Amino acid sequence: MDEEKDEEKEGLNVAKVESEQLQDIIDRKDREALKDVFLHVPSIDIAEAANEMEAKDLIFIFRNVESSLTADFFDALSQDTKEQLIAAMTNRDLVQIINSQAADDVADTVGDMPANLANKVLRAADKDMRKDINALLKYEEGTAGSLMTTEYLEFLDSTTVEEAIELIRERGRDAETIYTIFVRNPSRRFVGTVDLDDLIFASKDQKLNEIMNQDVVSCFVGTDQEEIGQLFRRYDLNALAVLNDDSCLVGVITIDDAVDVMTEESNEDLARMTNMEPTDKPYMETGAWDNAKRCIPWLVALLILGTFTTMVLNRLEAQDVFVKLPILIAFVPMLMDTGGNAGGQTTGLMIRGLAVKEFGPKQVLKILFKEFKSSLIVGGVVASFVFLWLLVEQYTGIVSGVGPGLEGLNIWNGSCWSPEFAGYALRNAGLVSLTMLFAIVVSKAVGTLLPMGAAAIKKDPALLSQPLLTTIMDVATLMIYFAIAMAFHPI
Amino acid sequence: MDEEKDEEKEGLNVAKVESEQLQDIIDRKDREALKDVFLHVPSIDIAEAANEMEAKDLIFIFRNVESSLTADFFDALSQDTKEQLIAAMTNRDLVQIINSQAADDVADTVGDMPANLANKVLRAADKDMRKDINALLKYEEGTAGSLMTTEYLEFLDSTTVEEAIELIRERGRDAETIYTIFVRNPSRRFVGTVDLDDLIFASKDQKLNEIMNQDVVSCFVGTDQEEIGQLFRRYDLNALAVLNDDSCLVGVITIDDAVDVMTEESNEDLARMTNMEPTDKPYMETGAWDNAKRCIPWLVALLILGTFTTMVLNRLEAQDVFVKLPILIAFVPMLMDTGGNAGGQTTGLMIRGLAVKEFGPKQVLKILFKEFKSSLIVGGVVASFVFLWLLVEQYTGIVSGVGPGLEGLNIWNGSCWSPEFAGYALRNAGLVSLTMLFAIVVSKAVGTLLPMGAAAIKKDPALLSQPLLTTIMDVATLMIYFAIAMAFHPI
Repeated sequence: MDEEKDEEKEGLNVAKVESEQLQDIIDRKDREALKDVFLHVPSIDIAEAANEMEAKDLIFIFRNVESSLTADFFDALSQDTKEQLIAAMTNRDLVQIINSQAADDVADTVGDMPANLANKVLRAADKDMRKDINALLKYEEGTAGSLMTTEYLEFLDSTTVEEAIELIRERGRDAETIYTIFVRNPSRRFVGTVDLDDLIFASKDQKLNEIMNQDVVSCFVGTDQEEIGQLFRRYDLNALAVLNDDSCLVGVITIDDAVDVMTEESNEDLARMTNMEPTDKPYMETGAWDNAKRCIPWLVALLILGTFTTMVLNRLEAQDVFVKLPILIAFVPMLMDTGGNAGGQTTGLMIRGLAVKEFGPKQVLKILFKEFKSSLIVGGVVASFVFLWLLVEQYTGIVSGVGPGLEGLNIWNGSCWSPEFAGYALRNAGLVSLTMLFAIVVSKAVGTLLPMGAAAIKKDPALLSQPLLTTIMDVATLMIYFAIAMAFHPI
Repeated sequence: MDEEKDEEKEGLNVAKVESEQLQDIIDRKDREALKDVFLHVPSIDIAEAANEMEAKDLIFIFRNVESSLTADFFDALSQDTKEQLIAAMTNRDLVQIINSQAADDVADTVGDMPANLANKVLRAADKDMRKDINALLKYEEGTAGSLMTTEYLEFLDSTTVEEAIELIRERGRDAETIYTIFVRNPSRRFVGTVDLDDLIFASKDQKLNEIMNQDVVSCFVGTDQEEIGQLFRRYDLNALAVLNDDSCLVGVITIDDAVDVMTEESNEDLARMTNMEPTDKPYMETGAWDNAKRCIPWLVALLILGTFTTMVLNRLEAQDVFVKLPILIAFVPMLMDTGGNAGGQTTGLMIRGLAVKEFGPKQVLKILFKEFKSSLIVGGVVASFVFLWLLVEQYTGIVSGVGPGLEGLNIWNGSCWSPEFAGYALRNAGLVSLTMLFAIVVSKAVGTLLPMGAAAIKKDPALLSQPLLTTIMDVATLMIYFAIAMAFHPI
């Protein structure tokens, strides 16, 4: 595998295995080569190469490679592959695999499985493991309880450093992390943590309550997973204590699970920003039909919301000013787009700030004022630009028909130098740029209020803000445009 | 601080301190209370409370709390506060603070500082620290080199477990992580890692090359930080080796820095999706003017792109079919919005898939075909819905004027039951729904090609895809609409 390493000097340095190579090794029943792959290639890469294999070939792997090397490999297989494998496996093989896994990983897998397979797994688990899995399955998806592991080290605060190190050697192998040791007092209340490095540098007869960190953050079983990601980020945690209502430790969330949560949360935000139902399935594993199902409801909902725009535009079209000055219609998409975009920027800022808890719905007035100032600057600059740009568009004939009877006039044929043309061109430019200014100010206010309002009623700010903003701004921009048009062109 | 803990039982469990409390403690010069705060409250929370204090009060903190407790506190202060503090501090105080920091954190701070302050810091740093800082400052922002720390533990592969544990006790205090030990061979090549827990469970006379992980991932100093985040996520790493071109270890990236990078990258994607310049400053620390500056260039650029739409719409308006059937104009915003939204969904999927390296630009044909299937389903369903919905809109008078001379007819006044009304209503509905089908198919293709194209020429797929898509689809939708309108309403 060395030659491949050299190829990749620009990016990363990692041994790889292709599906064909792996299949070939198994077909040849080459146990040595197989073991070599498991020694040098990261589990997740082997799992991806193995995901499309037949169950019998996977069983060959588990029978011929030590379980210490296959534990992570099993966890990294796709849910479909795991299910096929479990269905095809003898109970004896299964016992070995399941009991080499972390209980929280098995619980996640079992939670998404058909009942018959889930039962097969639970029967294969030993007593402690079964208890842990069942305990974890009780917690609602997306809470700290559903993320935590029950395999951690918790010692009494009067334990000495020497005793603690001895206990770690004894019990640490089953724990998901030994880098953070959790400490409780005699009444079982969680009181602090000790980092393994502090333990190593401490003198042997110190007690844990002398060296433990007391400035620790912990959460409760019902805490939302979005908050968990933020906690790890903010406090640079390696592991987080999960408490029950009596402040006793019932589980621990480790950094690898927290990283997965952060990824999940940012995927969810991105999906919602682009008006799709979030999913945790990778794109390539989602069929065209499933992807379509994530798109359709949103498109239809937005369409129905868009009816208001159609209605308003239809009514305005019947008005004199738009009939006599059809050029005004041509600027409608640009006005609507800018209205939506300006508010969308603000909504993006709000979604982010609310997500990382930089501010909350209580600061709405302060933020509204800040965005108002911002919108005057943005609106002023953009409107001034639009004024000039529209004069250019009209004089060069990019748009034609600036006023009744003025079709086809422009600088190229020298026909546009009448005061009448200038009067219409200036009024059109003034009308559109003033509309732009108002639209941007309103849009940034609406773009602030929608996500803030969602947060205030404890809804996901990313969920509906963007589409509602677009609809509200489409209608509002049309109204503003029409009102100003009546004043500028009193026909 | 106990009473506050109880209040927050729903969310998290963390001791807090308010700016006023902290200011009060310092004004009273209450050293005991101050130390108590540093023992119980996480550093980042104290730093946030202290960010607005005067430099002399901050100096009081550093003089009266042990440096083991203030090291993280200093790192968590805002850049502005750090600079004021450094400017106001005596060299003797500064020496103590700087040398209790991690070299990579100091390098980050120094990199953003005015030269006179940066020099003051470098003079305060001891010899080793100064060498490390200068080495780190050489690397380009956004590369592995700029993220890594030079304080890590690297042992020879023939070291025994017992020797290694002894070396960790000796040198580990200065290392940024002791949980991952890096192993080199006699020719200085990086050959593997040993996790601290494996070391603890191994027998004393084993050598590191017997127990080390060989399936390790590493990167090079020039590797892009976006890839770093993905590596930590994919391989569940705690620390990542950074190599030079000779495959020798020159630095290590730890998980806390990787988490920051992931956050930065997802902020950047969100900013670009909402058409803003990315920034790493928090919202509350950015002035209205700075925020406006992030908004304006994008709005203006999008406006200029929008000129095409204005132009096309202006031309089409002059055509017979739109003049005689003004109702058709009313559906333009809805058609354009849906065109943009459908492609936006696909663009979101592409940006995500490309970001996590699930696929690359080489798979473009496969993905284009998949999105094509998807778009036929989405387009078929949405177009069918639109057909029915438009009949409802026309018959109920939500839009009025379905054909010339048919203004104001609807079911409420019973005036719409003529074959002429039905003919126009059906043709309008057919025209709009057919346009919708084509627009969705085209939009999903364009929404695939733009980010894929950006990735193929090594540009950020999130950068321009969304605005270009909107512009292209606005124009394309209008063209399709007009072409079909000519066929349906041969006036």
